[in-house]
Amino acid sequence: MSNIYDDDTFFKAYSNMSRSKGGLTAAGEWHQLQRLFPNLKNKRVLDLGCGYGWHCKYAIETGADSVLGIDGSSKMIETAKRINQDGQIEYRVCNIEEYDYPNNQFDLVISNLVLHYIANLKEVYQNVYKTLKTGGLFLFNIEHPCFTAGINEDWIYDSNGKALYWAIDNYFYSGERKTNFLDKEVIKQHHTLTQILNSLLQCGFEIKAIEEAMPPENMRELPEMENEMRRPMMLLIKAQKTAGV
Amino acid sequence: MSNIYDDDTFFKAYSNMSRSKGGLTAAGEWHQLQRLFPNLKNKRVLDLGCGYGWHCKYAIETGADSVLGIDGSSKMIETAKRINQDGQIEYRVCNIEEYDYPNNQFDLVISNLVLHYIANLKEVYQNVYKTLKTGGLFLFNIEHPCFTAGINEDWIYDSNGKALYWAIDNYFYSGERKTNFLDKEVIKQHHTLTQILNSLLQCGFEIKAIEEAMPPENMRELPEMENEMRRPMMLLIKAQKTAGV
Repeated sequence: MSNIYDDDTFFKAYSNMSRSKGGLTAAGEWHQLQRLFPNLKNKRVLDLGCGYGWHCKYAIETGADSVLGIDGSSKMIETAKRINQDGQIEYRVCNIEEYDYPNNQFDLVISNLVLHYIANLKEVYQNVYKTLKTGGLFLFNIEHPCFTAGINEDWIYDSNGKALYWAIDNYFYSGERKTNFLDKEVIKQHHTLTQILNSLLQCGFEIKAIEEAMPPENMRELPEMENEMRRPMMLLIKAQKTAGV
Repeated sequence: MSNIYDDDTFFKAYSNMSRSKGGLTAAGEWHQLQRLFPNLKNKRVLDLGCGYGWHCKYAIETGADSVLGIDGSSKMIETAKRINQDGQIEYRVCNIEEYDYPNNQFDLVISNLVLHYIANLKEVYQNVYKTLKTGGLFLFNIEHPCFTAGINEDWIYDSNGKALYWAIDNYFYSGERKTNFLDKEVIKQHHTLTQILNSLLQCGFEIKAIEEAMPPENMRELPEMENEMRRPMMLLIKAQKTAGV
């Protein structure tokens, strides 16, 4: 298994991002994602692609009984164990596609900015549906289809380096997109909005919230937020398993 | 009341579009929209922005008891009365914002390619919710937010007139967009995906289907379909009033 996050140079660059160092509050979308969390008192939580474990730790701090965080990168899991350790959190090196999802086990499944690396989104949805208890919630944040359909996932610039506009193309040809992230070529998976949302419905979920991440007013002045009102980058979705498997 | 569709030149150009002349089957999205229709046997239908009345006629032909089609353009209503007349269809010149929505009256409300002219989408949602019976459906087709956020709702062209890509900007600044449609300046309203979908949930609807219109394979070779796989243009949504007002 090769994981870009296990590449030393890449992982170091990732570690230097403000959202890595600063945790949840350094992420522009956190104020929206946080509001979508249910009451976690006595709940069991699964985090798909837990990264540094910020969301696992948050779940425990807000009352969850236990959390399982899985991530395909051993470097991520090492860091999570170091900086977000807790007796009620289990961290495990495991890919989202390879995890053996137990039936009716979790009250909440979360996944933050990972599903755009997954080719077969519907298979993940089916597994999450299976592993949730009836009434359980699936809360995730995925790159917006406008963003993944963006040419090179980047702006078109003028000759002075100014971002002119966000250009999309080949929208309905979903699948692999080569992008540049932290100076490395990173392969992402573009899914159309139909694939992201309608597949949830087809798998039996009821959609409870659909929000595009929009920087809060007090963060819009930050240099890295300069263009964030110009195109949508992330899609936050809350879905519920309302009936049994 | 001024309505662009009551402008003689514009209306003539509109009348010459293949989707105007050919009716439902000439519209690239019809194969998808049609599948989203419920069984209409003995049902009451309201069509918001009925245009030529193609959908009204279809509803009657597939079993509906009665249809009310409203449209702000008197030219549209005149044409509908001429080409899609039926004893069970009432056509009325009336704006979507001005119609006096009766409580719990309709089993289905449809709206095809009209809501992107409406500034206050949520008010329409609230009215539709009110006017639907419990269990009733709201089926609509609205221009996709990627499309309405497109600069001039047009491609960026190279010097040879070839469409390079679809450029979006100012996505989160929703509201008025000046576009060119059939050689006239037409004002449309850009709504973000959050505004289109999350507002439905906030108004009490349950979302049953979300599909982006994609030309069927047998239409992709048509000259006007050349670029239709490159960016999404329309969003088809089916929502249900699952509980009472």
